[in-house]
Amino acid sequence: MLPKPLELLVSELNKLPGVGPRTAERLAMSILRRGAGEASQLSEALTSLHANIVECSQCHNLASEPLCFVCSDPKRSRDVVAIVEDALDVVALERAASFDGVYHVLGGIISPVDGIGPDQLNLASLKRRVEGGGIEELILATNASVEGEATAHYIRRFLPDIKITRLARGLPMGSDLEYADQTTLVRALEGRQTV
Amino acid sequence: MLPKPLELLVSELNKLPGVGPRTAERLAMSILRRGAGEASQLSEALTSLHANIVECSQCHNLASEPLCFVCSDPKRSRDVVAIVEDALDVVALERAASFDGVYHVLGGIISPVDGIGPDQLNLASLKRRVEGGGIEELILATNASVEGEATAHYIRRFLPDIKITRLARGLPMGSDLEYADQTTLVRALEGRQTV
Repeated sequence: MLPKPLELLVSELNKLPGVGPRTAERLAMSILRRGAGEASQLSEALTSLHANIVECSQCHNLASEPLCFVCSDPKRSRDVVAIVEDALDVVALERAASFDGVYHVLGGIISPVDGIGPDQLNLASLKRRVEGGGIEELILATNASVEGEATAHYIRRFLPDIKITRLARGLPMGSDLEYADQTTLVRALEGRQTV
Repeated sequence: MLPKPLELLVSELNKLPGVGPRTAERLAMSILRRGAGEASQLSEALTSLHANIVECSQCHNLASEPLCFVCSDPKRSRDVVAIVEDALDVVALERAASFDGVYHVLGGIISPVDGIGPDQLNLASLKRRVEGGGIEELILATNASVEGEATAHYIRRFLPDIKITRLARGLPMGSDLEYADQTTLVRALEGRQTV
């Protein structure tokens, strides 16, 4: 019931994660209302995306140069490597601004349900980096989910000879004990610290 | 902390309504992951949008021809005109599939807060259509909001000599009386019907 060009945009937007048919319609209408200038800016940003983004040759983070902004930064310590699922986790950790090591982006997480096994992750290159020497500690910064934990366990077995730590589990800041789920409370108790 | 081309796409997506910085990042990452093909399809849909969409010369609905799909349909009755705020309202009413008249799209709603007055709406062309004859009834199908009601009242005064009706107010289907807001209940009581 919408004109063809708008219907087409709606169906393209509808393919994005979390964008249902109604949201796609609202977005398309808003793009239409804002005028051709903004639409073409978005269009150009989309066109240049894949042409200009590469994987960091060292850590698989997203980059516009052969090395990402972390790996090419001489001030980062190379002896601690945080292992994360994807590039957005790098962004999250960088926002926290308290980690000065480097990263290794797995490019996914072990998930039998989705048919993702260890072979699809960037583990061979992680092993090469570890064998190359100079790394003192790997920090497993995978998500606090079943898949995240499974991936953490796999890496522990895959690289048995290096110090591996894991992000603490516990109550997130600002949370209410009353509403915390059972697993979080169990982990918070297990990981309790002397004050 | 993201590579420039990705940062650019994030900031463009962030301009869309309801898309905050985190959602924009997730969308951009997902577009990146799905590959260049899908990104260029979306990009092309955006480029062709403004070039190929016009306003229906009769009712201001969106169209890809001079007349929209409703106005060009010979089976629609031209004596009942539903007045709606924008083209998405036409889509919503067409989905309900129980209206066989035609539309008049106002292109907005009277909202002093946003600086939108009657002059910015397609009211002159509505008056011309009414004066042209052949219209028996105008159905005010504006939103059930303060702005929608204000616009309805304005139109009532603006076109004093024609039969004007308004969509019923009441409990939406599937709703729980217990959770209905006060105004809805008042309107549902006022509009009660004999069974």
